[in-house]
Amino acid sequence: MAENGKITPQSQDFPAWYQDVVREAELAEAAKVVKGCMVIKPHGYAIWEKIQSDLDRRFKETGHQNAYFPLLIPMSFINKEAEHVEGFAPEIAVVTHAGGKALPEGEQYCIRPTSETIIGHFFSKWISSYRDLPLLINQWANVMRWEMHTRMFLRTTEFLWQEGHTAHATHEDAKDEVIRMLNVYGDFAQEMMAMPVVRGIKTDAEKFAGALQTMCIEAMMRDGKALQAGTSHDLGQNFGKAFDVRFQTEQGREEFVWQTSWGVSTRLIGGLIMTHSDDTGLILPPRMAPVQVVIVPITRKDAEREKVLPVVDGLFRDLKARGIAVKVDDREGKRPGDKYYEWERKGVPLRVEVGMRDVDSGTAMTRLRIAEEKQKIAIDTLATQIPGILDDFQQMLLARAEKFRDDNTVTVDTWDDFLGVFQDGQSKFAWCHWDGTRETEMRIKEETSVTIRCIPLPGQGPAPEPGRCIRTGNPSAGRVLMARAY
Amino acid sequence: MAENGKITPQSQDFPAWYQDVVREAELAEAAKVVKGCMVIKPHGYAIWEKIQSDLDRRFKETGHQNAYFPLLIPMSFINKEAEHVEGFAPEIAVVTHAGGKALPEGEQYCIRPTSETIIGHFFSKWISSYRDLPLLINQWANVMRWEMHTRMFLRTTEFLWQEGHTAHATHEDAKDEVIRMLNVYGDFAQEMMAMPVVRGIKTDAEKFAGALQTMCIEAMMRDGKALQAGTSHDLGQNFGKAFDVRFQTEQGREEFVWQTSWGVSTRLIGGLIMTHSDDTGLILPPRMAPVQVVIVPITRKDAEREKVLPVVDGLFRDLKARGIAVKVDDREGKRPGDKYYEWERKGVPLRVEVGMRDVDSGTAMTRLRIAEEKQKIAIDTLATQIPGILDDFQQMLLARAEKFRDDNTVTVDTWDDFLGVFQDGQSKFAWCHWDGTRETEMRIKEETSVTIRCIPLPGQGPAPEPGRCIRTGNPSAGRVLMARAY
Repeated sequence: MAENGKITPQSQDFPAWYQDVVREAELAEAAKVVKGCMVIKPHGYAIWEKIQSDLDRRFKETGHQNAYFPLLIPMSFINKEAEHVEGFAPEIAVVTHAGGKALPEGEQYCIRPTSETIIGHFFSKWISSYRDLPLLINQWANVMRWEMHTRMFLRTTEFLWQEGHTAHATHEDAKDEVIRMLNVYGDFAQEMMAMPVVRGIKTDAEKFAGALQTMCIEAMMRDGKALQAGTSHDLGQNFGKAFDVRFQTEQGREEFVWQTSWGVSTRLIGGLIMTHSDDTGLILPPRMAPVQVVIVPITRKDAEREKVLPVVDGLFRDLKARGIAVKVDDREGKRPGDKYYEWERKGVPLRVEVGMRDVDSGTAMTRLRIAEEKQKIAIDTLATQIPGILDDFQQMLLARAEKFRDDNTVTVDTWDDFLGVFQDGQSKFAWCHWDGTRETEMRIKEETSVTIRCIPLPGQGPAPEPGRCIRTGNPSAGRVLMARAY
Repeated sequence: MAENGKITPQSQDFPAWYQDVVREAELAEAAKVVKGCMVIKPHGYAIWEKIQSDLDRRFKETGHQNAYFPLLIPMSFINKEAEHVEGFAPEIAVVTHAGGKALPEGEQYCIRPTSETIIGHFFSKWISSYRDLPLLINQWANVMRWEMHTRMFLRTTEFLWQEGHTAHATHEDAKDEVIRMLNVYGDFAQEMMAMPVVRGIKTDAEKFAGALQTMCIEAMMRDGKALQAGTSHDLGQNFGKAFDVRFQTEQGREEFVWQTSWGVSTRLIGGLIMTHSDDTGLILPPRMAPVQVVIVPITRKDAEREKVLPVVDGLFRDLKARGIAVKVDDREGKRPGDKYYEWERKGVPLRVEVGMRDVDSGTAMTRLRIAEEKQKIAIDTLATQIPGILDDFQQMLLARAEKFRDDNTVTVDTWDDFLGVFQDGQSKFAWCHWDGTRETEMRIKEETSVTIRCIPLPGQGPAPEPGRCIRTGNPSAGRVLMARAY
């Protein structure tokens, strides 16, 4: 990690670069006084608000309603689903005292690590008939998992997320929901975050504790590692049975509901940073940028201010009226170059500079966050041109991220080649044959720390063709995606 | 509390009425399995989203930025401000175990009851110069206070709220902020919730633990009791000193910052319910209604559906295009009367009924939530008329609430009259002289359970004139607002 004000080059030390970008863009800082927690600073939180507002719209358009369930979960609930307790017990924080007294052993609570159990409990009270189904609920909340190795946005003890929880009359309906929400995540990542993703299925070893199946979206970071950016779980009847969530079918039979859950978190901000940013700092796609355009007036004397500021103000109003998030940086006592540098580090997509000479000539200098050169644009046409410029920049970032991923994706057929791709802690996306056993998966993970990110959904990877497992030589039905991961 | 589907009359048992309305409108339910907590159901949460989105806009317009601080606060932090710890220690929930281990005594945490302490800690890291001031932060979060006597929305162990935290260079600036945010709350309550409020200052006995002064808005509920609906605190330099938040002034001196904090919570939903609702159920002012208009098609045969539904659909689109939150209730197997009843209980401001005869005559029957009679309106003009109808309804509810409050506000000059006003647990708003001592305030509270709600700000109560304390006969500088309270 470099000193304040500096950013370690990506190529020199990627983790240090990441920490530097988070600090210099003022996105977050480690809380230190609270183990593994972070403070999300205003610029970081504004990105989270962008994520929230777009996803929330997508959830509502697909028929979901928001609700809020308790932060605390009775310890006895966590213990009801066997796989669930095994997965989460080591990570929970426990409340043993409250209101000045010790709570009796049977009345202690944990802070929710996820809410399947408590929501399952309420589903059992709310659902009695097929007419109550599907029940489509989402919750925006904080959750807590006591992590040993924390990293801002990517893995923190407390994080913010949304968790969808739905109940259906048939397994078919539940499976449709799982894929529907996976696609909501995938579309959001590509359209809004300009972050290409592979949509696939987790192996049994990597699935959610208590699920029949977990689907995921996996994105490539600029160090070639994979980031699991969202998951969607087919819970089958596991929680329905654990919490006795039954309904009467149209034919009058009693059955357990079929449930799903799905979530994304503030981790997405880590994905956004590591998909686009560079050695200058953060790069934000315009649709995720709290400030899309910054206008810097350049004035040396009061006489110049009188001529320049009205032009800047007109441009500001014009852009605002077009729905562009625009900011004028007219702070005094700070040089234009320092302002440029600050907004570049914060990832603002477009900068507009307006000085005395620009006003006289009727043009302004503009600079896209990753352009080599400035571009001169007539001030009169700026406001009409900027929405298109931002759209193009959004598409360009997506194309750039896709190219980077494709350039760093390989098909590997031998163990030697595999070891070559992943040597010295490096990573790419590697499509490899695997024999389908947990044993081989674990062996590869132990030997190389490389994991199976997912079994691709149709169209998300190479066309399925039989082959031989890269490690054991045993038969394989098709290639899976392997990479080092966050 | 009446059985499911029934609402106890307000006049018979107000607390039972309240619980029945909350249940029948499907706003929330007691969690039971988590002490004193509630589940906020979709209809209740949608009202909270309305509150959030409008307040958030007002906070941003007044220059505040959102951020997020840890849920857990080191126990040592709570102990740093003497009055603060005294006020909150009895209510906190403590995390003593995490990650499968007991935490050492010095590393235990409490779940935030409010965040002055942890935010003070970060302010001390972020602020060093007058150039860093004012620092204007808001947080949307859950907080926890272990309460013995809980009541949905009004007092629950966990609740959702926003907490503003600001730091300023001078006490003047901080005091301006305190009143600015009090007015944001007051304006929001009146303009959006149609809930008139008295803006005033809390007595020292009732102020926030750790503040120099607390300002508040107080609203009258339909049983004559007061609800403290929002508070804004002048923290002086108390937390600045406790957390060493210093800055260098323009003149180069080191000084402690002046801080404020201010908050409103899901309690506002309780206030909304008890300001407007009646024995039929919830009444929502249009600006707080997740569904502003419900259209109920009335069709008996398929042939009727074919003629009625296209008309309903056209109206739906037209209203939606005008930004009206409209819902079509075309559920089959449910009678129109049952639908009317359901939407009335849920507080939808306007119902539109469209049947075969209406389509033929080109008119539709409409009914405002509290109108005695239905009104016939030409279908062609409905969409253009409805925004105005909703605006009028909003104003009408505010006027009605103001009238109710004024009708139940009295000026009291003798102790006998005072006892008469508040006999048998009843309440009104009573403007009374008070001698300004904590002793008299406590005596009145112990004798009658009536409290001083606030010392009114200019224009918020009777013009200040000297008088004699209602209890002791000692001199008083002006009247204060007294009432029973939630």
